[in-house]
Amino acid sequence: MIGIPAVSNSRKPLPVDLVGALSERFGARFQMGEAIRLEHGKSETHFAPMLPDAVVFAESTDDVVAVVNLCRDARVPIIPFGAGTSVEGNTLAVHGGVSLDLSRMMRIIAVNTEDFDCVVEAGVRREQLNEYLRDQGLFFPIDPGANATLGGMASTRASGTNAVRYGTMRDAVLALTVVTADGRVIRTSRRARKSAAGYDLTRLFVGSEGTLGIITEVTLRLHAIPEAISAATCSFETIGGAVDTVVQSIQLGIPLARVEILDDMQIRAVNRWSKMDLPELTTLFFEFHGSERYVEEQVETVKELAAANGGGEFRWAHRTEDRNALWKARHEAYYAAVNLRPGAIGWATDVCVPMSRLAECIGETKTDLERSTVPATILGHVGDGNFHVVFSMDPNSSAEQDEVATINRRLVERALAMDGTCTGEHGIGLGKQEYLVEELGEAVDLMRSIKKALDPQGLLNPGKIFQ
Amino acid sequence: MIGIPAVSNSRKPLPVDLVGALSERFGARFQMGEAIRLEHGKSETHFAPMLPDAVVFAESTDDVVAVVNLCRDARVPIIPFGAGTSVEGNTLAVHGGVSLDLSRMMRIIAVNTEDFDCVVEAGVRREQLNEYLRDQGLFFPIDPGANATLGGMASTRASGTNAVRYGTMRDAVLALTVVTADGRVIRTSRRARKSAAGYDLTRLFVGSEGTLGIITEVTLRLHAIPEAISAATCSFETIGGAVDTVVQSIQLGIPLARVEILDDMQIRAVNRWSKMDLPELTTLFFEFHGSERYVEEQVETVKELAAANGGGEFRWAHRTEDRNALWKARHEAYYAAVNLRPGAIGWATDVCVPMSRLAECIGETKTDLERSTVPATILGHVGDGNFHVVFSMDPNSSAEQDEVATINRRLVERALAMDGTCTGEHGIGLGKQEYLVEELGEAVDLMRSIKKALDPQGLLNPGKIFQ
Repeated sequence: MIGIPAVSNSRKPLPVDLVGALSERFGARFQMGEAIRLEHGKSETHFAPMLPDAVVFAESTDDVVAVVNLCRDARVPIIPFGAGTSVEGNTLAVHGGVSLDLSRMMRIIAVNTEDFDCVVEAGVRREQLNEYLRDQGLFFPIDPGANATLGGMASTRASGTNAVRYGTMRDAVLALTVVTADGRVIRTSRRARKSAAGYDLTRLFVGSEGTLGIITEVTLRLHAIPEAISAATCSFETIGGAVDTVVQSIQLGIPLARVEILDDMQIRAVNRWSKMDLPELTTLFFEFHGSERYVEEQVETVKELAAANGGGEFRWAHRTEDRNALWKARHEAYYAAVNLRPGAIGWATDVCVPMSRLAECIGETKTDLERSTVPATILGHVGDGNFHVVFSMDPNSSAEQDEVATINRRLVERALAMDGTCTGEHGIGLGKQEYLVEELGEAVDLMRSIKKALDPQGLLNPGKIFQ
Repeated sequence: MIGIPAVSNSRKPLPVDLVGALSERFGARFQMGEAIRLEHGKSETHFAPMLPDAVVFAESTDDVVAVVNLCRDARVPIIPFGAGTSVEGNTLAVHGGVSLDLSRMMRIIAVNTEDFDCVVEAGVRREQLNEYLRDQGLFFPIDPGANATLGGMASTRASGTNAVRYGTMRDAVLALTVVTADGRVIRTSRRARKSAAGYDLTRLFVGSEGTLGIITEVTLRLHAIPEAISAATCSFETIGGAVDTVVQSIQLGIPLARVEILDDMQIRAVNRWSKMDLPELTTLFFEFHGSERYVEEQVETVKELAAANGGGEFRWAHRTEDRNALWKARHEAYYAAVNLRPGAIGWATDVCVPMSRLAECIGETKTDLERSTVPATILGHVGDGNFHVVFSMDPNSSAEQDEVATINRRLVERALAMDGTCTGEHGIGLGKQEYLVEELGEAVDLMRSIKKALDPQGLLNPGKIFQ
């Protein structure tokens, strides 16, 4: 595999004293074997593996404090690790060190049904949480596709299919318990739904990719499961027709719960991977939430708009199992796209632009893809102006990798020129560092100052977001 | 007037060189007269005046850069000033210095109707913005009552009556232009609706009360004016009945656009001040937004819930002018309450608790007020769990001031014991500093570290949030 080593992987071996101390404190939960290090040092996408020197499996906030204190004294990097589903190399051990695996911290600490919130450990996964909540008539809406941990989702400011209606992790997180670089345990906020009490530390840690502190507990806003849920797909003659349907729906105040765009190539991939028979055209996947009457009203309006914009028939997924099959297919779209070629590896891009520029941005990108030799699909959260390209790359071809890198650069620069962002939801990690500076200029210096203030030794997930 | 000087007002006179330089740069926009300094150094509430040494009226971001650079070189504090409507002493010149008045920066720079956003200078007021937007079918929902500047509202993380549906300034601000302590101009984010590009500087500046940088431009999310708007009042036999009606409405997913609680004393004050004839009982003020059919459906459900919880008839404000009169009365509730006694001064408290504790929190507070010798009212944004007590204090009685301070302490500690916050929307300013530490403990040390990193000389609104 080629992969992209974004920075040189210079490192010293772990100090013997640290190995002894971690081994004594954690026993079998401290591991240095090659296989487990590879599991924690590889990426789901195109980045070459960068292995940590060791892995510790934490089971409590106290465990995290212990790891932070021991590693700090030994000046060894700590890389928090959840499900490993991030796509910008966010958990790779650029400078070696200890991968701090929080996936065993999976207790659901409290569900406050009357307050529509819950408190979970950082390793709880979103599907686990929703299974737990279902009987109480509640759900947690943020859905990035992957069955990620809530701590990881907070760290990357994840969003996904429901963000158009329910917001992103920025909006969903009420409070965090964080272990700081100096080993203190802080809680960033109380459980009130809003607060004006000092700096917004919650939002500072959300999206900081483990570089400012280690999130060990997450307090989340929940929502009532709606009385009625309807999902449908609708094919369009043009990308512009699909995008215009969404823009006009939002202008009319329709609270679309989900609205996803998949281009013709992506539909072909989905049909093949998930054994579906959708027309191989640009398609919107819709979901509507509300009372029975209100969902009907929403559907009526959106159908009219779709028809006026060259949309075909709505294909409904009425039963819960049909709806689940539809969204499962959407969630597996990345794997479907990568597997357009056997043995290929994936590269998933991610930009977000103001809605008024979205059709243009997708259109120009589609032109680039049509000229490319690497198969690629477009899919995205069209209600937010956020979309991805997934490339299906030959792992042994550096020419393909260069070609994709060029298209990716063009895409990001196109988005920035439209006052958009280089990443809507994947984060900066290793892959977007130069673009972060292009996007925000000297504001990145402020980020560096904050990093230095909160992690003066630079031991928390070093080499991510910026060098 | 007694007032509360929260910290000693030790200061040196402005350096002669600085006076010369500001005078040369700003001419008549640099002022040192007593009257203008008092205007910028007094509070709407119970704080004693703390005057700046001078006032500069900025008309551009470049002006702000000039003031920051000149004051930094002279080591003189800078206090950003908008409309002066904050209520925790947020703009008082604790350590003297230059009050930097941004209220003349009132250009609406861009309205992007298709993107539902706009860019405004920091001195634009919310009523000005909404008048400007009306013809375009858009509105800006955040409404703290006062006709505050958008820069000030961002700085204090304001919210108000619409927050239950549309969020607070935390949610409404897409991006900020900020002048940093070292005189650089940064933009915190692009105009995309979401982003995962690095630390969330936007949310860090929102609510930082001018202590980390000076906001000069604000990019805001807008909303479509709904097809139908209905407002009504409904009286309840008990506070619990009113609160339960709101909690149950939210549990059923009713997207209440506004829901305000006013206790019997507050209704008495409103009737007198705004010449209304509402029954002098605990009352909810509702507003519903949506399509005609959807508003009807919401109203039906809420009426049933209210009736089941001891609510009386709904009194509707159908015409726009009736609705405006209703909300004008609500917005003037503070003045109505203060003027329960002629010549009184006001003290406005502000806590926010999880919804499940709200009825209890208000109930216990009401008991405290019934035992108090100082007339006081309760009012609040009940859908968020946020409420205020407004005291009508004799300005010459230190006994009354002590009594109110004691009730305020009991209220804040009650809220904190319920996992609530010491301020839902007013900010920390001068009045809540000890409570911030009670609320967040060592997390406040992180805030101090960030302050030190971004404003190492401590010149930006010093003495606010923490000493």
